[in-house]
Amino acid sequence: MRKLYDLAGADDRRFSPYCWRSRMALAHKGLAFDAVPCRYTEKDRIAFSGQKKLPVLADGEAIIADSWDIAGYLEDTYPEAPALFGGDAARQLARFVNAWTDTELNPALLKVVIKDVFDRVHPDDRDYFRRTREDRFGSTLEELHANRDTYRKNLSAVLPPLEARLSETPYLCGDAPAYADYIVFGSFQWVRVASPLELLDPQATLHVHAWRERLLDHFDGVARQFPAAA
Amino acid sequence: MRKLYDLAGADDRRFSPYCWRSRMALAHKGLAFDAVPCRYTEKDRIAFSGQKKLPVLADGEAIIADSWDIAGYLEDTYPEAPALFGGDAARQLARFVNAWTDTELNPALLKVVIKDVFDRVHPDDRDYFRRTREDRFGSTLEELHANRDTYRKNLSAVLPPLEARLSETPYLCGDAPAYADYIVFGSFQWVRVASPLELLDPQATLHVHAWRERLLDHFDGVARQFPAAA
Repeated sequence: MRKLYDLAGADDRRFSPYCWRSRMALAHKGLAFDAVPCRYTEKDRIAFSGQKKLPVLADGEAIIADSWDIAGYLEDTYPEAPALFGGDAARQLARFVNAWTDTELNPALLKVVIKDVFDRVHPDDRDYFRRTREDRFGSTLEELHANRDTYRKNLSAVLPPLEARLSETPYLCGDAPAYADYIVFGSFQWVRVASPLELLDPQATLHVHAWRERLLDHFDGVARQFPAAA
Repeated sequence: MRKLYDLAGADDRRFSPYCWRSRMALAHKGLAFDAVPCRYTEKDRIAFSGQKKLPVLADGEAIIADSWDIAGYLEDTYPEAPALFGGDAARQLARFVNAWTDTELNPALLKVVIKDVFDRVHPDDRDYFRRTREDRFGSTLEELHANRDTYRKNLSAVLPPLEARLSETPYLCGDAPAYADYIVFGSFQWVRVASPLELLDPQATLHVHAWRERLLDHFDGVARQFPAAA
Protein backbone atom coordinates (compact mmCIF):
# COMPACT_ATOMS: atom_id res chain seq x y z
CA MET A 1 0.00 0.00 0.00
CA ARG A 2 1.28 3.49 -0.78
CA LYS A 3 2.32 5.45 2.29
CA LEU A 4 2.13 9.13 3.18
CA TYR A 5 4.50 10.16 5.97
CA ASP A 6 2.55 12.77 7.84
CA LEU A 7 3.44 15.18 10.65
CA ALA A 8 1.76 14.20 13.93
CA GLY A 9 1.35 16.21 17.12
CA ALA A 10 0.06 15.43 20.61
CA ASP A 11 -3.02 13.16 20.61
CA ASP A 12 -2.07 12.19 17.05
CA ARG A 13 -3.29 15.51 15.64
CA ARG A 14 -2.31 15.92 11.98
CA PHE A 15 -1.59 19.58 11.52
CA SER A 16 0.94 20.21 8.81
CA PRO A 17 -0.57 22.42 6.09
CA TYR A 18 1.78 20.79 3.58
CA CYS A 19 0.72 17.26 4.53
CA TRP A 20 -2.91 18.31 4.15
CA ARG A 21 -2.19 19.43 0.59
CA SER A 22 -1.00 15.91 -0.18
CA ARG A 23 -3.86 14.21 1.68
CA MET A 24 -6.41 16.18 -0.32
CA ALA A 25 -4.54 15.54 -3.58
CA LEU A 26 -4.57 11.78 -2.91
CA ALA A 27 -8.29 11.92 -2.08
CA HIS A 28 -8.96 13.94 -5.26
CA LYS A 29 -7.19 11.26 -7.30
CA GLY A 30 -9.10 8.53 -5.46
CA LEU A 31 -5.87 6.86 -4.36
CA ALA A 32 -5.85 4.89 -1.11
CA PHE A 33 -2.90 5.28 1.25
CA ASP A 34 -1.71 4.54 4.75
CA ALA A 35 -0.76 7.64 6.68
CA VAL A 36 2.39 7.10 8.73
CA PRO A 37 2.62 9.53 11.64
CA CYS A 38 6.00 11.18 12.25
CA ARG A 39 7.00 13.77 14.79
CA TYR A 40 9.39 16.64 14.15
CA THR A 41 12.07 14.75 16.09
CA GLU A 42 11.52 11.46 14.29
CA LYS A 43 13.02 12.53 11.00
CA ASP A 44 15.09 9.35 10.95
CA ARG A 45 11.88 7.65 9.82
CA ILE A 46 12.07 9.49 6.51
CA ALA A 47 15.85 9.25 6.11
CA PHE A 48 15.17 6.97 3.11
CA SER A 49 13.85 10.05 1.27
CA GLY A 50 17.24 11.77 1.44
CA GLN A 51 15.83 14.88 3.12
CA LYS A 52 14.14 15.94 6.34
CA LYS A 53 10.77 17.47 5.46
CA LEU A 54 7.26 16.11 5.53
CA PRO A 55 5.22 15.04 3.69
CA VAL A 56 6.94 12.15 1.94
CA LEU A 57 5.05 9.81 -0.38
CA ALA A 58 6.23 6.25 -0.97
CA ASP A 59 4.34 4.79 -3.93
CA GLY A 60 5.78 1.45 -5.07
CA GLU A 61 9.36 2.22 -6.03
CA ALA A 62 8.77 5.96 -6.16
CA ILE A 63 9.74 8.15 -3.20
CA ILE A 64 8.68 11.78 -3.44
CA ALA A 65 9.25 14.56 -0.92
CA ASP A 66 7.68 18.05 -0.98
CA SER A 67 3.96 18.63 -1.34
CA TRP A 68 4.30 20.34 -4.73
CA ASP A 69 6.38 17.52 -6.16
CA ILE A 70 3.92 14.98 -4.78
CA ALA A 71 1.04 16.74 -6.56
CA GLY A 72 2.99 16.80 -9.82
CA TYR A 73 3.93 13.15 -9.44
CA LEU A 74 0.31 12.15 -8.85
CA GLU A 75 -0.91 14.19 -11.82
CA ASP A 76 1.70 12.74 -14.17
CA THR A 77 1.52 9.17 -12.87
CA TYR A 78 -2.27 8.89 -12.70
CA PRO A 79 -3.47 10.95 -15.68
CA GLU A 80 -6.74 9.04 -15.93
CA ALA A 81 -7.81 9.99 -12.40
CA PRO A 82 -9.46 13.41 -11.97
CA ALA A 83 -7.07 16.22 -12.91
CA LEU A 84 -5.38 18.17 -10.13
CA PHE A 85 -4.34 21.05 -12.38
CA GLY A 86 -6.21 21.11 -15.70
CA GLY A 87 -3.31 21.74 -18.03
CA ASP A 88 0.17 23.24 -18.03
CA ALA A 89 -0.93 26.88 -17.85
CA ALA A 90 -3.06 26.18 -14.78
CA ARG A 91 -0.19 24.26 -13.19
CA GLN A 92 2.04 27.33 -13.63
CA LEU A 93 -0.54 29.62 -12.07
CA ALA A 94 -1.12 27.22 -9.17
CA ARG A 95 2.51 28.01 -8.31
CA PHE A 96 1.48 31.61 -7.71
CA VAL A 97 -1.23 30.40 -5.32
CA ASN A 98 1.45 28.24 -3.67
CA ALA A 99 3.80 31.22 -3.35
CA TRP A 100 1.06 33.45 -1.92
CA THR A 101 0.09 30.80 0.62
CA ASP A 102 3.67 30.15 1.71
CA THR A 103 4.84 33.78 1.89
CA GLU A 104 1.67 35.61 2.98
CA LEU A 105 -1.06 33.39 4.37
CA ASN A 106 0.92 30.87 6.40
CA PRO A 107 3.11 33.34 8.30
CA ALA A 108 0.04 35.51 9.01
CA LEU A 109 -1.89 32.52 10.37
CA LEU A 110 1.01 31.11 12.36
CA LYS A 111 1.66 34.36 14.19
CA VAL A 112 -1.91 34.36 15.51
CA VAL A 113 -2.05 30.73 16.64
CA ILE A 114 1.57 29.92 17.41
CA LYS A 115 0.99 29.35 21.14
CA ASP A 116 -1.99 27.12 20.38
CA VAL A 117 0.10 25.11 17.94
CA PHE A 118 2.89 24.82 20.50
CA ASP A 119 0.44 23.49 23.08
CA ARG A 120 -0.57 20.73 20.65
CA VAL A 121 2.88 19.75 19.44
CA HIS A 122 3.94 16.37 20.81
CA PRO A 123 5.79 16.84 24.15
CA ASP A 124 8.94 15.33 22.65
CA ASP A 125 8.87 17.97 19.88
CA ARG A 126 8.30 21.08 21.97
CA ASP A 127 11.94 22.09 22.40
CA TYR A 128 12.51 21.70 18.68
CA PHE A 129 9.39 23.67 17.80
CA ARG A 130 10.18 26.51 20.24
CA ARG A 131 13.78 26.86 19.11
CA THR A 132 13.10 26.84 15.37
CA ARG A 133 10.08 29.19 15.51
CA GLU A 134 11.69 31.63 17.92
CA ASP A 135 14.71 31.77 15.60
CA ARG A 136 12.47 32.36 12.59
CA PHE A 137 10.50 35.23 14.12
CA GLY A 138 13.17 36.67 16.40
CA SER A 139 10.71 36.63 19.32
CA THR A 140 9.74 34.20 22.04
CA LEU A 141 6.49 32.29 21.65
CA GLU A 142 5.15 34.21 24.63
CA GLU A 143 5.97 37.58 23.03
CA LEU A 144 4.26 36.51 19.83
CA HIS A 145 1.25 35.32 21.79
CA ALA A 146 1.03 38.64 23.63
CA ASN A 147 0.70 40.41 20.25
CA ARG A 148 -2.01 38.09 19.00
CA ASP A 149 -4.58 40.88 18.52
CA THR A 150 -2.19 42.82 16.29
CA TYR A 151 -1.46 39.71 14.26
CA ARG A 152 -5.18 39.09 13.82
CA LYS A 153 -5.49 42.53 12.27
CA ASN A 154 -2.55 41.77 10.00
CA LEU A 155 -4.24 38.54 8.94
CA SER A 156 -7.33 40.48 7.93
CA ALA A 157 -5.12 42.47 5.53
CA VAL A 158 -3.89 39.26 3.89
CA LEU A 159 -7.26 37.63 3.16
CA PRO A 160 -8.89 40.10 0.70
CA PRO A 161 -7.61 38.47 -2.52
CA LEU A 162 -8.92 35.09 -1.37
CA GLU A 163 -12.28 36.52 -0.33
CA ALA A 164 -12.60 38.50 -3.58
CA ARG A 165 -11.79 35.46 -5.69
CA LEU A 166 -14.13 33.11 -3.81
CA SER A 167 -17.00 35.59 -4.11
CA GLU A 168 -16.96 34.77 -7.83
CA THR A 169 -17.01 30.97 -8.02
CA PRO A 170 -17.39 28.22 -5.38
CA TYR A 171 -13.71 27.23 -5.65
CA LEU A 172 -10.48 28.90 -6.76
CA CYS A 173 -10.51 26.51 -9.69
CA GLY A 174 -14.15 27.23 -10.64
CA ASP A 175 -17.15 25.00 -10.03
CA ALA A 176 -15.13 22.13 -8.56
CA PRO A 177 -12.06 22.09 -6.33
CA ALA A 178 -8.60 21.21 -7.56
CA TYR A 179 -5.05 21.43 -6.32
CA ALA A 180 -4.88 25.23 -5.99
CA ASP A 181 -7.82 24.95 -3.58
CA TYR A 182 -6.05 22.28 -1.55
CA ILE A 183 -2.91 24.41 -1.28
CA VAL A 184 -4.88 27.10 0.53
CA PHE A 185 -7.28 24.77 2.33
CA GLY A 186 -4.36 22.95 3.95
CA SER A 187 -3.58 26.11 5.88
CA PHE A 188 -7.11 26.49 7.22
CA GLN A 189 -7.27 22.83 8.15
CA TRP A 190 -3.96 23.21 9.99
CA VAL A 191 -5.22 26.10 12.14
CA ARG A 192 -8.55 24.33 12.63
CA VAL A 193 -6.95 21.28 14.25
CA ALA A 194 -4.31 23.30 16.08
CA SER A 195 -6.25 26.23 17.53
CA PRO A 196 -9.70 26.77 19.06
CA LEU A 197 -9.74 30.30 17.59
CA GLU A 198 -12.12 30.93 14.70
CA LEU A 199 -9.95 33.04 12.42
CA LEU A 200 -12.56 33.68 9.75
CA ASP A 201 -14.82 36.62 10.42
CA PRO A 202 -18.18 35.50 9.01
CA GLN A 203 -18.83 39.00 7.64
CA ALA A 204 -15.50 40.04 6.12
CA THR A 205 -14.63 36.55 4.91
CA LEU A 206 -18.08 35.15 4.22
CA HIS A 207 -17.01 33.35 1.05
CA VAL A 208 -13.77 31.96 2.45
CA HIS A 209 -15.73 30.56 5.38
CA ALA A 210 -18.31 28.87 3.12
CA TRP A 211 -15.54 27.49 0.87
CA ARG A 212 -13.70 26.01 3.85
CA GLU A 213 -16.89 24.35 5.09
CA ARG A 214 -17.53 22.84 1.65
CA LEU A 215 -14.00 21.47 1.47
CA LEU A 216 -14.28 19.98 4.95
CA ASP A 217 -17.16 17.88 3.59
CA HIS A 218 -15.46 16.77 0.38
CA PHE A 219 -14.34 13.18 -0.18
CA ASP A 220 -16.70 11.87 2.49
CA GLY A 221 -15.50 14.46 4.98
CA VAL A 222 -11.91 13.25 5.12
CA ALA A 223 -10.81 16.60 6.55
CA ARG A 224 -13.72 17.08 8.96
CA GLN A 225 -13.09 13.65 10.48
CA PHE A 226 -10.10 15.20 12.21
CA PRO A 227 -11.52 17.05 15.19
CA ALA A 228 -11.17 20.79 15.53
CA ALA A 229 -9.12 21.96 18.49
CA ALA A 230 -11.29 22.65 21.53
CA MET B 1 -10.49 49.74 -37.10
CA ARG B 2 -11.10 48.46 -33.57
CA LYS B 3 -10.77 51.09 -30.91
CA LEU B 4 -9.51 50.97 -27.32
CA TYR B 5 -10.71 53.85 -25.18
CA ASP B 6 -7.76 54.54 -22.92
CA LEU B 7 -7.25 56.76 -19.87
CA ALA B 8 -4.99 59.72 -20.67
CA GLY B 9 -3.25 62.13 -18.30
CA ALA B 10 -1.24 65.31 -18.75
CA ASP B 11 1.13 65.23 -21.77
CA ASP B 12 -0.98 62.32 -23.05
CA ARG B 13 0.51 59.88 -20.53
CA ARG B 14 -1.33 56.55 -20.55
CA PHE B 15 -1.30 55.36 -16.98
CA SER B 16 -4.28 53.21 -16.19
CA PRO B 17 -3.14 49.75 -15.05
CA TYR B 18 -6.43 48.33 -16.37
CA CYS B 19 -5.96 49.89 -19.82
CA TRP B 20 -2.45 48.44 -19.93
CA ARG B 21 -3.86 44.97 -19.33
CA SER B 22 -5.97 45.40 -22.46
CA ARG B 23 -3.18 46.94 -24.50
CA MET B 24 -0.93 43.99 -23.74
CA ALA B 25 -3.74 41.49 -24.42
CA LEU B 26 -4.38 43.04 -27.84
CA ALA B 27 -0.65 42.97 -28.60
CA HIS B 28 -0.47 39.32 -27.50
CA LYS B 29 -3.30 38.46 -29.88
CA GLY B 30 -1.61 40.46 -32.65
CA LEU B 31 -4.69 42.64 -33.11
CA ALA B 32 -4.23 46.21 -34.36
CA PHE B 33 -6.23 48.98 -32.72
CA ASP B 34 -6.53 52.73 -32.44
CA ALA B 35 -6.17 53.98 -28.87
CA VAL B 36 -8.65 56.77 -28.13
CA PRO B 37 -7.49 58.94 -25.24
CA CYS B 38 -10.10 59.85 -22.62
CA ARG B 39 -9.73 61.82 -19.42
CA TYR B 40 -11.48 61.02 -16.15
CA THR B 41 -13.85 63.92 -16.81
CA GLU B 42 -14.60 62.94 -20.40
CA LYS B 43 -16.69 59.90 -19.59
CA ASP B 44 -19.37 61.12 -22.01
CA ARG B 45 -17.05 59.78 -24.72
CA ILE B 46 -17.78 56.22 -23.54
CA ALA B 47 -21.46 56.75 -22.78
CA PHE B 48 -22.19 54.33 -25.66
CA SER B 49 -20.78 51.53 -23.47
CA GLY B 50 -23.49 52.02 -20.85
CA GLN B 51 -21.00 52.51 -18.01
CA LYS B 52 -18.25 54.91 -16.93
CA LYS B 53 -15.03 52.95 -16.60
CA LEU B 54 -12.04 52.58 -18.86
CA PRO B 55 -10.89 50.65 -20.79
CA VAL B 56 -13.65 50.10 -23.34
CA LEU B 57 -13.06 48.07 -26.50
CA ALA B 58 -15.15 48.67 -29.63
CA ASP B 59 -14.55 45.83 -32.08
CA GLY B 60 -16.95 45.93 -35.05
CA GLU B 61 -20.39 45.62 -33.48
CA ALA B 62 -19.04 44.44 -30.13
CA ILE B 63 -18.62 46.90 -27.26
CA ILE B 64 -16.89 45.52 -24.18
CA ALA B 65 -16.07 47.31 -20.94
CA ASP B 66 -13.83 46.03 -18.12
CA SER B 67 -10.33 44.72 -18.69
CA TRP B 68 -11.21 41.17 -17.61
CA ASP B 69 -14.20 41.00 -19.94
CA ILE B 70 -12.09 42.39 -22.77
CA ALA B 71 -9.51 39.63 -22.27
CA GLY B 72 -12.23 36.98 -22.24
CA TYR B 73 -13.83 38.46 -25.34
CA LEU B 74 -10.51 38.46 -27.20
CA GLU B 75 -9.75 34.87 -26.17
CA ASP B 76 -13.18 33.61 -27.24
CA THR B 77 -13.45 35.71 -30.41
CA TYR B 78 -9.93 35.08 -31.70
CA PRO B 79 -9.19 31.49 -30.67
CA GLU B 80 -6.63 31.00 -33.42
CA ALA B 81 -4.45 33.85 -32.21
CA PRO B 82 -2.00 33.02 -29.36
CA ALA B 83 -3.87 31.96 -26.20
CA LEU B 84 -4.20 34.48 -23.38
CA PHE B 85 -5.17 31.87 -20.79
CA GLY B 86 -4.36 28.30 -21.89
CA GLY B 87 -7.59 26.59 -20.89
CA ASP B 88 -10.48 27.02 -18.48
CA ALA B 89 -8.59 26.03 -15.33
CA ALA B 90 -5.90 28.60 -16.04
CA ARG B 91 -8.55 31.22 -16.73
CA GLN B 92 -10.06 30.55 -13.31
CA LEU B 93 -6.69 30.88 -11.60
CA ALA B 94 -5.88 34.06 -13.50
CA ARG B 95 -8.83 35.50 -11.55
CA PHE B 96 -6.87 34.94 -8.35
CA VAL B 97 -3.95 36.88 -9.82
CA ASN B 98 -6.47 39.57 -10.80
CA ALA B 99 -7.89 39.66 -7.25
CA TRP B 100 -4.43 39.83 -5.67
CA THR B 101 -3.40 42.66 -7.98
CA ASP B 102 -6.58 44.66 -7.38
CA THR B 103 -6.78 44.19 -3.60
CA GLU B 104 -3.11 44.03 -2.56
CA LEU B 105 -0.67 45.28 -5.18
CA ASN B 106 -2.51 48.28 -6.62
CA PRO B 107 -3.46 49.93 -3.32
CA ALA B 108 0.09 49.36 -2.02
CA LEU B 109 1.60 50.95 -5.13
CA LEU B 110 -0.87 53.84 -5.26
CA LYS B 111 -0.22 54.89 -1.69
CA VAL B 112 3.49 55.33 -2.47
CA VAL B 113 3.12 57.28 -5.71
CA ILE B 114 -0.24 59.03 -5.29
CA LYS B 115 1.22 62.54 -5.32
CA ASP B 116 3.28 61.71 -8.41
CA VAL B 117 0.18 60.41 -10.14
CA PHE B 118 -1.77 63.50 -9.14
CA ASP B 119 0.94 65.71 -10.63
CA ARG B 120 0.58 63.88 -13.95
CA VAL B 121 -3.20 63.78 -14.12
CA HIS B 122 -4.58 66.16 -16.74
CA PRO B 123 -5.25 69.58 -15.15
CA ASP B 124 -8.97 69.28 -15.94
CA ASP B 125 -9.09 65.97 -13.98
CA ARG B 126 -7.25 67.04 -10.82
CA ASP B 127 -10.29 68.01 -8.77
CA TYR B 128 -11.97 64.71 -9.66
CA PHE B 129 -8.86 62.69 -8.85
CA ARG B 130 -8.24 64.45 -5.53
CA ARG B 131 -11.85 64.13 -4.36
CA THR B 132 -12.27 60.43 -5.25
CA ARG B 133 -8.88 59.31 -3.89
CA GLU B 134 -9.14 61.32 -0.69
CA ASP B 135 -12.58 59.79 -0.12
CA ARG B 136 -11.21 56.30 -0.74
CA PHE B 137 -8.28 56.58 1.65
CA GLY B 138 -9.82 58.96 4.19
CA SER B 139 -6.69 61.17 3.98
CA THR B 140 -5.56 64.11 1.92
CA LEU B 141 -3.09 63.50 -0.88
CA GLU B 142 -0.57 65.55 1.09
CA GLU B 143 -1.01 63.37 4.19
CA LEU B 144 -0.57 60.24 2.13
CA HIS B 145 2.53 61.72 0.50
CA ALA B 146 4.00 62.56 3.90
CA ASN B 147 3.76 58.87 4.85
CA ARG B 148 5.40 57.67 1.66
CA ASP B 149 8.30 55.95 3.46
CA THR B 150 5.89 53.89 5.55
CA TYR B 151 3.92 52.91 2.47
CA ARG B 152 7.14 51.84 0.75
CA LYS B 153 7.77 49.44 3.61
CA ASN B 154 4.21 48.16 3.32
CA LEU B 155 4.75 47.59 -0.40
CA SER B 156 7.79 45.45 0.37
CA ALA B 157 5.49 43.18 2.43
CA VAL B 158 3.15 42.71 -0.55
CA LEU B 159 5.73 41.69 -3.16
CA PRO B 160 7.10 38.38 -1.77
CA PRO B 161 4.62 36.04 -3.52
CA LEU B 162 5.41 37.68 -6.86
CA GLU B 163 9.15 37.55 -6.27
CA ALA B 164 8.97 33.91 -5.10
CA ARG B 165 6.95 32.86 -8.13
CA LEU B 166 9.12 34.71 -10.65
CA SER B 167 12.26 33.15 -9.18
CA GLU B 168 10.97 29.85 -10.63
CA THR B 169 10.11 30.63 -14.27
CA PRO B 170 10.61 33.72 -16.47
CA TYR B 171 6.87 34.54 -16.40
CA LEU B 172 3.93 33.81 -14.11
CA CYS B 173 2.58 31.64 -16.90
CA GLY B 174 5.86 29.74 -17.43
CA ASP B 175 8.32 30.20 -20.28
CA ALA B 176 6.21 32.77 -22.14
CA PRO B 177 3.97 35.57 -20.89
CA ALA B 178 0.19 35.41 -20.97
CA TYR B 179 -2.72 37.32 -19.53
CA ALA B 180 -1.91 36.73 -15.85
CA ASP B 181 1.44 38.40 -16.50
CA TYR B 182 -0.23 41.37 -18.14
CA ILE B 183 -2.60 41.80 -15.20
CA VAL B 184 0.36 42.39 -12.89
CA PHE B 185 2.58 44.12 -15.43
CA GLY B 186 -0.11 46.77 -16.02
CA SER B 187 0.44 47.96 -12.46
CA PHE B 188 4.19 48.33 -12.86
CA GLN B 189 3.77 50.09 -16.19
CA TRP B 190 1.29 52.47 -14.54
CA VAL B 191 3.74 53.49 -11.79
CA ARG B 192 6.58 53.65 -14.33
CA VAL B 193 4.84 56.30 -16.44
CA ALA B 194 3.36 58.10 -13.44
CA SER B 195 6.24 58.30 -10.96
CA PRO B 196 10.01 58.83 -11.17
CA LEU B 197 10.45 56.56 -8.12
CA GLU B 198 11.98 53.14 -8.75
CA LEU B 199 9.79 50.96 -6.57
CA LEU B 200 11.61 47.69 -7.19
CA ASP B 201 14.58 47.07 -4.95
CA PRO B 202 17.06 45.27 -7.24
CA GLN B 203 18.08 42.97 -4.37
CA ALA B 204 14.78 42.01 -2.72
CA THR B 205 12.84 41.94 -5.98
CA LEU B 206 15.53 40.87 -8.40
CA HIS B 207 13.22 38.57 -10.36
CA VAL B 208 10.28 40.98 -10.48
CA HIS B 209 12.63 43.65 -11.81
CA ALA B 210 14.00 41.37 -14.55
CA TRP B 211 10.47 40.20 -15.49
CA ARG B 212 9.26 43.81 -15.80
CA GLU B 213 12.21 44.68 -18.05
CA ARG B 214 11.50 41.67 -20.28
CA LEU B 215 7.84 42.63 -20.61
CA LEU B 216 8.75 46.22 -21.45
CA ASP B 217 10.57 44.83 -24.48
CA HIS B 218 7.83 42.46 -25.64
CA PHE B 219 5.81 43.10 -28.81
CA ASP B 220 8.47 45.42 -30.23
CA GLY B 221 8.65 47.36 -26.98
CA VAL B 222 5.06 48.61 -27.07
CA ALA B 223 5.20 49.37 -23.34
CA ARG B 224 8.71 50.86 -23.28
CA GLN B 225 7.77 53.29 -26.03
CA PHE B 226 5.82 55.21 -23.42
CA PRO B 227 8.41 57.23 -21.54
CA ALA B 228 9.02 56.68 -17.85
CA ALA B 229 8.21 59.63 -15.62
CA ALA B 230 11.26 61.83 -15.03
